[in-house]
Amino acid sequence: MQKQARRSVEVCLSPAMFPAFEKKDAIVVVVDILRATSAICTAFHHGVRRIIPVETLEEAREMKKKGYMVAAERDGIVQDFADFGNSPFNFTPERVHGKDIVYSTTNGTQAIHLGARCHSVVIGAYLNHAALSEWLVSQERDVIILCAAWKTKFNLEDSVYAGKLAGSLLESGKFDTICDATLASIDLYGLASGNLLDYIDKAAQRSRLRKNNLDDVIPFCHTPDFTRKIPILKGEYLESIN
Amino acid sequence: MQKQARRSVEVCLSPAMFPAFEKKDAIVVVVDILRATSAICTAFHHGVRRIIPVETLEEAREMKKKGYMVAAERDGIVQDFADFGNSPFNFTPERVHGKDIVYSTTNGTQAIHLGARCHSVVIGAYLNHAALSEWLVSQERDVIILCAAWKTKFNLEDSVYAGKLAGSLLESGKFDTICDATLASIDLYGLASGNLLDYIDKAAQRSRLRKNNLDDVIPFCHTPDFTRKIPILKGEYLESIN
Repeated sequence: MQKQARRSVEVCLSPAMFPAFEKKDAIVVVVDILRATSAICTAFHHGVRRIIPVETLEEAREMKKKGYMVAAERDGIVQDFADFGNSPFNFTPERVHGKDIVYSTTNGTQAIHLGARCHSVVIGAYLNHAALSEWLVSQERDVIILCAAWKTKFNLEDSVYAGKLAGSLLESGKFDTICDATLASIDLYGLASGNLLDYIDKAAQRSRLRKNNLDDVIPFCHTPDFTRKIPILKGEYLESIN
Repeated sequence: MQKQARRSVEVCLSPAMFPAFEKKDAIVVVVDILRATSAICTAFHHGVRRIIPVETLEEAREMKKKGYMVAAERDGIVQDFADFGNSPFNFTPERVHGKDIVYSTTNGTQAIHLGARCHSVVIGAYLNHAALSEWLVSQERDVIILCAAWKTKFNLEDSVYAGKLAGSLLESGKFDTICDATLASIDLYGLASGNLLDYIDKAAQRSRLRKNNLDDVIPFCHTPDFTRKIPILKGEYLESIN
């Protein structure tokens, strides 16, 4: 029996570097821990039907006029026309169950649209870590972990989670890597994992959220395996695989 | 007496992210440990007069026709029209003393030209670490450490050195940072510093150089304080500050 070639896992630390990673047959995992991909996983756990990611506030505003429920913020501030912002705590079962929700955030939505140039885009976070890892191992495709970052600048919280996810894929024995960013992310996760919240305390986004009194979500966003849901992009919207 | 505000140090992990960092009053330190900035420091130590960085092989070829000595390679391979490639070992005193040399490499030259949008560009490497750190502390400017990376992808060897340099600047007490990439680089250097060569052994560029039998330069390129020279960009060429 022929030995199956291992698939590659790579970490792209910022959307600005994505053109060097893009491969049309790969699965892209978008990671925006504080807070977009954590909020999206929470919304599906609480029964949202679809999430429609839009890039600009203008699109979000137009969708609101058409009657959609809209989650929209910029720089952590909820937009006045929106129903709510992107704290996972906003996506309660009462609000979202069975609904379609339009979603526009500072960095996460842009990363989702970039990923759409590849075979498929799924949403990754600590919240759905085990389910997502198992699913990625079960697919016969290369994986690119795309950190949403902060206005194209590297951020710690996404990179550390990228290290956790890449580490899980490599441990499965089905993946290999020759990507320095993957090795660095795994090392950063290794440093952080003993006390993740202490480590993330130094991240810039932690300070931004604290300034707006939004940092109460940080422990929740670093909780592993809150849900088995795996959001996947289908054309214009996200739905759950399972 | 008024307390002087601290200056900022930031690490830009790839030229692809540089637009988010660019500040016209800042000093940019270009880092391309394997091997461009290590070779440039070596050349100045051995008495080169000027180095003229050019981006394209076409420019390098034109300069050769005009009579310049040319160092040029792509993907680690010396170009046929060039006098030599970019191993630091090529820049011997016999060859370079008093000369002007045209220099074109895969990643380093491009980073130098990007940095030219800011106040000044200097060349950083382990080889000139102490002299460079002291000089940066003595200037009244913010510092952006720009990793040349590999075809816009993050690389370990530049990021680890960026962490060493950023750490030295912060230790001086004259600098502060709110940049996640700076914190991550410092942590990577912390992991690596116990045995730098073992750590760098896993880097992708190490394998590329080994494939071409060029990895003999790696220990030299990780030698601290081989020289006091600080190459700086003056218009179209690099010369030494001291």
